[in-house]
Amino acid sequence: MNNVTRIKIFKPASEVFESFVDPSRIGNFWFSSSSERWEAGKTITLRYEEYDAQGDIDILAIEKDRKIVFKWLYGEDHVVTIMLEEPESGVTIVEVVEEGFNERDDNFIASLLDNKEGWVYSLTCLKAYLEFGVTRLRAGLV
Amino acid sequence: MNNVTRIKIFKPASEVFESFVDPSRIGNFWFSSSSERWEAGKTITLRYEEYDAQGDIDILAIEKDRKIVFKWLYGEDHVVTIMLEEPESGVTIVEVVEEGFNERDDNFIASLLDNKEGWVYSLTCLKAYLEFGVTRLRAGLV
Repeated sequence: MNNVTRIKIFKPASEVFESFVDPSRIGNFWFSSSSERWEAGKTITLRYEEYDAQGDIDILAIEKDRKIVFKWLYGEDHVVTIMLEEPESGVTIVEVVEEGFNERDDNFIASLLDNKEGWVYSLTCLKAYLEFGVTRLRAGLV
Repeated sequence: MNNVTRIKIFKPASEVFESFVDPSRIGNFWFSSSSERWEAGKTITLRYEEYDAQGDIDILAIEKDRKIVFKWLYGEDHVVTIMLEEPESGVTIVEVVEEGFNERDDNFIASLLDNKEGWVYSLTCLKAYLEFGVTRLRAGLV
């Protein structure tokens, strides 16, 4: 089963794309740091200073300003696809699909809900960062 | 089964409380309008101009700056409890519990996920409004 989250951001797809792949920008809305620029074939270390936690992802595919596919290398073996559509100039629909939830897992529903919570929160922080310049909304869920 | 969402907001509980109950403030982070001030025993009409949609809620209980309990009068018969804790001055933990999800419903999981999405989004918009004065983050999920 997949978890799908979609949000509209009033900025060009290129701005949204760079916010994910540029390690100097991710700390404005999601993880506190990313070890290097996201490119296909690389393993990237993502860090949350606030929780003293980190994990690696493998970047499986990148289409500039259009698509990012990565696999989490910790916890469940999930694959995430971030699709960017720009239906009109300066407006981007961001769709995140996380795949790999197993209905037979004991914590299946809790895992889906945690994942939904994380994506809605991070994408809303991304929207606040890009549209309003707010860079300190992240890391507030408790 | 219940859906529980918690967020930390760097503002006093009284500010968070007023944002929900004062009809001049709700449009900054959630519905576009609320028909009148929330008080126990009242039925309130909430409206989303963006979706040309509205629905009523019954306010079941209010404790000033501490707790709001209401029941949605459309769709499922769910009860929502919003609890505000101020563990240190000027910092509020907002906990929202929505009760009434039925595991035997065909759309049980989808309903939980939609509900989680809505609460995380609205509470993040509330945080952006109170901490950073951002009032146009709402109504962006698609």
